[in-house]
Amino acid sequence: MYKMQPESSTSQDVQVPVAILGCGLIGISWAALFLHHGINVRAWDPNPAARNALSEKVKAPMAQLADMGPPAITLGILSVFTEMSAALEGILFVQESAPEVIDLKHEIYHNFECCAGPDALIASSASGLSWSSLSSKMSAPERLLTAHPFNPPHLVPLVEMYSPLDAVLDRAERVYCQIGRVPVRMKREATGHIANRLASALWREAVNIVVEGIADVEAVDLALVNGPGLRWAVAGAHMTYHLGGGEGGMAQYLKHLGPSQESRWEDLGSPTLTPEVCATLISGVEAEAKGKSIKELEKARDAGLMRLLAARDGKV
Amino acid sequence: MYKMQPESSTSQDVQVPVAILGCGLIGISWAALFLHHGINVRAWDPNPAARNALSEKVKAPMAQLADMGPPAITLGILSVFTEMSAALEGILFVQESAPEVIDLKHEIYHNFECCAGPDALIASSASGLSWSSLSSKMSAPERLLTAHPFNPPHLVPLVEMYSPLDAVLDRAERVYCQIGRVPVRMKREATGHIANRLASALWREAVNIVVEGIADVEAVDLALVNGPGLRWAVAGAHMTYHLGGGEGGMAQYLKHLGPSQESRWEDLGSPTLTPEVCATLISGVEAEAKGKSIKELEKARDAGLMRLLAARDGKV
Repeated sequence: MYKMQPESSTSQDVQVPVAILGCGLIGISWAALFLHHGINVRAWDPNPAARNALSEKVKAPMAQLADMGPPAITLGILSVFTEMSAALEGILFVQESAPEVIDLKHEIYHNFECCAGPDALIASSASGLSWSSLSSKMSAPERLLTAHPFNPPHLVPLVEMYSPLDAVLDRAERVYCQIGRVPVRMKREATGHIANRLASALWREAVNIVVEGIADVEAVDLALVNGPGLRWAVAGAHMTYHLGGGEGGMAQYLKHLGPSQESRWEDLGSPTLTPEVCATLISGVEAEAKGKSIKELEKARDAGLMRLLAARDGKV
Repeated sequence: MYKMQPESSTSQDVQVPVAILGCGLIGISWAALFLHHGINVRAWDPNPAARNALSEKVKAPMAQLADMGPPAITLGILSVFTEMSAALEGILFVQESAPEVIDLKHEIYHNFECCAGPDALIASSASGLSWSSLSSKMSAPERLLTAHPFNPPHLVPLVEMYSPLDAVLDRAERVYCQIGRVPVRMKREATGHIANRLASALWREAVNIVVEGIADVEAVDLALVNGPGLRWAVAGAHMTYHLGGGEGGMAQYLKHLGPSQESRWEDLGSPTLTPEVCATLISGVEAEAKGKSIKELEKARDAGLMRLLAARDGKV
């Protein structure tokens, strides 16, 4: 129900090194995933500090991955390059995780088209920019796909992909399956892809519940984590209502409870993030955090994710 | 982050038997939970078939509970009664899970007030009826609380509680902690409590994504289960954005990304469940189910939930 990728033989695109362009938090996670799965990585970042820190910074996510399942017999080799052109030498697959600035991305794609071989693909981790705008200046836009991971990308399996060409998605899917990801195909571009649209819709009501005084921030989170969130880690929203319809499935659910869902939709809120609302959310989440720092909370979240993934999927 | 109930000593309310009124699916789950935790149950249902089947029907959920953690040294004893008055004898806590028909509920509460001792509380599993309407005919409405479980109730820990009296919630909380539940307090009544409001908000966008042709039913579910759903089994929606703000937490998140959330809210859809939309959802979820029956899908979901719970919480 939650994992459907085929067992794949080694994708040709990772029999040679992959290139990682942009070595911030997202790029580090991608590098760790490829290395853990025995794939060589050629990394580049315009910032010398980011380049110099990379080999040290991949250690923590690689250790987390190793905690969940044994790495490849031979780990991938990490090479870091000052020049983008050098990083692109001999590769067939690029994961680009530059900041979300369109001109910066266009410049990278221009260099990609100049330096990478004609068969190479470039996958953008872009969260807020569309495939159309990203590819608009390329001479061969079909070489670009969007492949949006979900934070923290080395732990959360989802990769949301969009390209107008199925053959491009087929190739990217084989790469992502190779590194234990669960690639999901979109049929057309949309702001927020799939997952951030769902998260945004849920959070709007989570904010509304606080604003309307129904429950406080901590209670909302506690309800989500011990109720629908837990269940959505196993069965999706549509599947859940299919099961909610009894033997008649979704058809029966829609017949009997569709109208009550529609009237509930009417009852949901449309809050505005006014200064007062922001203050309530900030103090609410601080109460929930109980004095724990962001680092401590992240560590707890990651440990929780690792336990769930190991239990759910058996391996990563 | 996902479990905050205190270790409690035995609640006085479960040192005597509890009463289960209504032995449908929800009542069966409640009975299994109490029995598994060593608490005697006095059950009643107006339907002889439901009464006769109960002792057999609690076996499956009790076996699932035992799979996740050892039961109490002495299991609770199940007694089934033809008369509600007999089931209420000597109890201090009642869990009522009758059908969602207000007159039926009122009749049960009337009998409760006639037959149960003056210190007994009655908790209603009602999903769609409010505390105000449920308690409106009682001579002592403060003896009622709403305590809504989440399906399947013996596996999903959430219990959403509402009562205007903190002392009532304190007592109920001790009972639910005793049987491994995670009780969450609402500050006021609301249709759909917390969890079904969140689920409804998310599903509206999940339907919209399908209607707008962004992705198909199966892709939406796969993205949820391998992305935000998985993460929400560990950290709530508010906490997630707190972590998304880096060292500055929620304050920083709201400052930098609040406006983009608001503009994404604008972009979310408001679908209508027309016959065409329903047909798309039904065929989509059938494609996702890949020929598996509801029973098989439920079994897979339950097995997944059990693995996650055991991994996340260590015990149930």
